[in-house]
Amino acid sequence: MSKILDKFAPLFSPRSIAFVGASNTVTKWGFLILFNLLDGGYTGRVHPINPKDEEVLGLKAYPSVLDVPDDIDLAIIVVPPAHVLNVIGQCVEKSIPVGVVVTAGFGEMGEEGRELEREIVRVAREGGMMLTGPNCAGVMSVNSSSMYAMMPPFTPRGGHLSIASQSGNVGASMLRFSVDHDMGFNKFISTGNEADLHAEDYFEYFGEDPETHVILSYMEGPKNGRRLFDVAKKVTKKKPIVMLKSGRTSAGEKAAASHTGSLAGSDGVFDSMCKQVGITRVENIEEMFDTARAMERQPLPKGNRIGIVAGGGGWGVLAADACARVGLDVVELKPETLEILDEILPEWWSRNNPVDLVAGLRPGDFVNCLEALLRCDYIDGVLALGAVGFSTARARGFKESSLAERYNLGEMSDLFIAEDMRTAKGLIGLLDKYRKPVLVAAETALSARVIKNESILALEENGVLVYPTPDRAAGVMAKMAERSLYLRNGHS
Amino acid sequence: MSKILDKFAPLFSPRSIAFVGASNTVTKWGFLILFNLLDGGYTGRVHPINPKDEEVLGLKAYPSVLDVPDDIDLAIIVVPPAHVLNVIGQCVEKSIPVGVVVTAGFGEMGEEGRELEREIVRVAREGGMMLTGPNCAGVMSVNSSSMYAMMPPFTPRGGHLSIASQSGNVGASMLRFSVDHDMGFNKFISTGNEADLHAEDYFEYFGEDPETHVILSYMEGPKNGRRLFDVAKKVTKKKPIVMLKSGRTSAGEKAAASHTGSLAGSDGVFDSMCKQVGITRVENIEEMFDTARAMERQPLPKGNRIGIVAGGGGWGVLAADACARVGLDVVELKPETLEILDEILPEWWSRNNPVDLVAGLRPGDFVNCLEALLRCDYIDGVLALGAVGFSTARARGFKESSLAERYNLGEMSDLFIAEDMRTAKGLIGLLDKYRKPVLVAAETALSARVIKNESILALEENGVLVYPTPDRAAGVMAKMAERSLYLRNGHS
Repeated sequence: MSKILDKFAPLFSPRSIAFVGASNTVTKWGFLILFNLLDGGYTGRVHPINPKDEEVLGLKAYPSVLDVPDDIDLAIIVVPPAHVLNVIGQCVEKSIPVGVVVTAGFGEMGEEGRELEREIVRVAREGGMMLTGPNCAGVMSVNSSSMYAMMPPFTPRGGHLSIASQSGNVGASMLRFSVDHDMGFNKFISTGNEADLHAEDYFEYFGEDPETHVILSYMEGPKNGRRLFDVAKKVTKKKPIVMLKSGRTSAGEKAAASHTGSLAGSDGVFDSMCKQVGITRVENIEEMFDTARAMERQPLPKGNRIGIVAGGGGWGVLAADACARVGLDVVELKPETLEILDEILPEWWSRNNPVDLVAGLRPGDFVNCLEALLRCDYIDGVLALGAVGFSTARARGFKESSLAERYNLGEMSDLFIAEDMRTAKGLIGLLDKYRKPVLVAAETALSARVIKNESILALEENGVLVYPTPDRAAGVMAKMAERSLYLRNGHS
Repeated sequence: MSKILDKFAPLFSPRSIAFVGASNTVTKWGFLILFNLLDGGYTGRVHPINPKDEEVLGLKAYPSVLDVPDDIDLAIIVVPPAHVLNVIGQCVEKSIPVGVVVTAGFGEMGEEGRELEREIVRVAREGGMMLTGPNCAGVMSVNSSSMYAMMPPFTPRGGHLSIASQSGNVGASMLRFSVDHDMGFNKFISTGNEADLHAEDYFEYFGEDPETHVILSYMEGPKNGRRLFDVAKKVTKKKPIVMLKSGRTSAGEKAAASHTGSLAGSDGVFDSMCKQVGITRVENIEEMFDTARAMERQPLPKGNRIGIVAGGGGWGVLAADACARVGLDVVELKPETLEILDEILPEWWSRNNPVDLVAGLRPGDFVNCLEALLRCDYIDGVLALGAVGFSTARARGFKESSLAERYNLGEMSDLFIAEDMRTAKGLIGLLDKYRKPVLVAAETALSARVIKNESILALEENGVLVYPTPDRAAGVMAKMAERSLYLRNGHS
C-alpha cells in the first residue's frame, strides 16, 4: 500500500471508532451522527464516549477514550469547543491516528477561536495525529466500511464518486442529489475549517484510492493555493476533479469570509489556474453531478465536434444553440453521411445536423441514425434527444385508460414499452461499439423515478446518461471535451 | 364578450369537434390524438371523420364533415398533406370557423409545400375560417373544456398558465414538466408553421383570456416581428409573457430554418426588442417554468434588493454569488436589523447578509429571521435556503430504522415532521403578511414528490415555490425584479 493510502486508512477504513460526545438526546448532534453511523450499518466497532451515561444508543459507553479497552483508529469528536483540546490530548495519549472534529466555534469565530484552533492542531501534530475539521459535518466511506458518520440523514449507495466539501450543507445537498439520482458514492469528507488537513490532502488521497474514479469538490477558498494546484495537476492526469468554487462575486466572497473564514481571492486568477491544472470547474450543484456522472460512466470525446439526433425539431434547435453557446461545434454532415441518412429517413428530412427524425418514425430508425453519426471519424460525440421514454409514458396512459379494454391497448402498451426498451438497448450497444460519448436528453428524465420509466432507467444503469434538457446535456459534453483537450495538450 | 375572445372561442372552447382523419390504427396520429381527446374527458361532442370505417374509437364516423348532422366549432385535421386542401374546402362549406391542421409537409418542405400552404390559407380566409398550423401537435384547453387534442400523452391539471409553442416537441416537454411539477395549465397551442394564425394572435387572445395569468412562449422566429412586439407591448402590461427563443446562435439559427422555416434574425436585435416591450426572456425550459410558476403565484419585488436567510453557510455563499451574477443586490443589513437578529441568533452569528443560521437552531428561529428581513423597507424580496424539508427527510430515516422502537423514534419523527410543517406554515403566513416574494431553495425539492415531503408540498401548494438550488431561485428573483422595473419605468 502506498504511503498516502496507508496514512488515510484509519480515516476512511477505520476498524474502530471512538465517538466522543455521544448522546442519548435525540436532537443532539451526538445522537444524530452516531445514529446515522449505526443505522448505516458500519462494519467496524463503535465506542461511544460519554462521561455520564453507561450506555448510548445501546452500546457500552466510556468516560473517555483512555478508558476504551480496544485500539482506536478514528475519533469522531462532537463535544463543545471548550472541551476539544482536552479530548485531543487524550486521543494523542491513546495513540489514535486520526480525529474528525465536528464541533464548530473555532477559526470561523474570530481571533480567540483561531488561537484555540492553532493550539489543537499543535497538540495533534506533536502527537502524530491528523485532524479533519473543525466545524465539519463528518465523514462517509461506503465501499470499504459502510460508514455514514455524517450529520445529514442521507445514505447513498456505494459507487465511485468521492467528495471533499468545504461546506457541510453543500455536501448534504450533494448527498441528497446522489440519492435522488440513485448515484453511487464512495467517500465523502466535510473538510470544515481545514485547520490541519486541507482539501488538497484529500484530493491527493482520492487520486490514489482505486475505489475513487471521479473527485468532486466544493470550495470556498483554498488554504494553500500553490499546493492545491500542484496536487491537482498530478491528480487530474489520472482522474477528473470536478469543482464547484463559490465566492466568485464580491457578494459571495464576503459571505464566504464569514462562513469558513476563507479568502476567495480573485476569481479570474483562480479560474485560469484551474485551466492550467486540469480542474473541471462547474457553476452549480446540478452541473456538478451532470458532469461527474458522465465522466464516471462515459468515454471522453476526442474533440468538440458534435452530432445531434433529435426526435423532434424544436429540441434540435435548442440543442444546436446550447452547443454553440458552450463552444461545441455542430458539424456539417459530409455527403457520404447524408447518403446513409437518406436511406433511413423519409425524403423530406432536413439533411442537416441536427438530424431531425421528423414524425412517422419507424422503430429502429433512431438507433440507425445515431449509428450513422457515431461511425463518422469527424464526429467526436453525439447528443440524442427525446429518443426514449416517450412511448413508455404513452403506454402508461393507455394502460390507465377506460378505453384500454375495447382497443386492446394493454397489448399495444406492452409493444410500445418493448419498442422503447429496444431503442434503449440499441443505444447502449452503440456506446459499447464506438466508445464515443452518447448523452441523451429526454423530457421524461426528471420523472423517470416518480413514474417508473423502465427504458430511461435501463439507459442510466448502463452508462447512457439522460438529462432533462438539451442544455444540460450540451453543457456536460463541453466539459468532457475540455478535459479531453487538457489531457492531450496539457491545457484547455 | 370582447371581439377577440369571441373569435377564439371555437378554438379553445369548442362545443363540437370534427376530427378529420380519425383512425382505428393504434399507431397513427389519427388514433393517438383522438384517443387523448376522448381519454382526457373532453366535455363537448366529437365526430370522427373517416371515409371507410363506420365507427372510430367507439364513435359514429362520417365520410366527410359535410355528412355530420351537427354544427361544428372546430375541425382537427390529420389527413395526409395532399388531402388537406379538399378538407379545408369542405370545412368552409360546412361553415366551420376554426381548423387545427396537424398534418406536416407544407411550408417547411420547400417551394412546393409553401405553394400548397398559401393555397390552403387563401381558401380558408376567403371562407372566413381561421387556421392553426399546419405542422403542429394540436391544441389543449383544460379549464373550459377538458380538451386534450394533442399528440403527446400528457394531461396536466387545470390552472392559469397558457402556452403558445412554435414546436410540438418543445411544447410536449413543457407539458411533461408541468405534470412532473404538478403545475396547472389552462391552454396550450402548438402553432406550427403559422401559415394563418401567428404566435402574436394567441398572445393577444391570452392577454384577454381571464383564465390565463401567465403566458409562455417557445419561439424559433416571429412571422411578423413588428406586430409581435406591438401586441406583446400591450399584453405585458397586464400579464407576463415568458419566452424561450431559440436560434440564438448561428448553429441554432440554421437548425431553426430547416425545422419550421423560421428566420431567427439577429439575436441582439430580438433581445433588445424583448426588453423594450417587456417580454421576459429565458434561456431554457427549466428557467421558463421556474419563472412562470413564481410570476403566477408570488407578488413582484419592488426592486432588486435581496435578503438571504440560509440554514447553512455554503448555500448562503452560493446564493450570494448567484444573486450577484444575475444583478441582484445582496444588501448590507442596517444596524436596527442586526439588533433584531442579535436577539434571535446565538452571539457568534455572522452579522451579515446572507443571514447564516448556524447550527443549533431552535424551532421558530428560521421564520423569525425571515420576518426580520421581510419587514425591512430596504429589502424587496427574500431567498430562504434549506428552510424546510430536511427534518422531514430525517424523520423518514428514523421511522425506517431498526433502532426506531428502542429510541421511541416514531414519536420523535412525528415531532420533526410537525416542526418542519410549522416552519412551512410560518413561511406561508409571511408571504401573505408582507406581500413580498419569498423563494425557497432546498435540496429536498427535487425529490419532494418521489419521497413524499409534506412540508415542501405544503409550501408549493400555498405559493411559496421551492427550487432545488440557490442559483435557480436567484435567477427567478432577477426575472421578477426585471418585470417589476419594466412595469414601473416602461423598460428594463
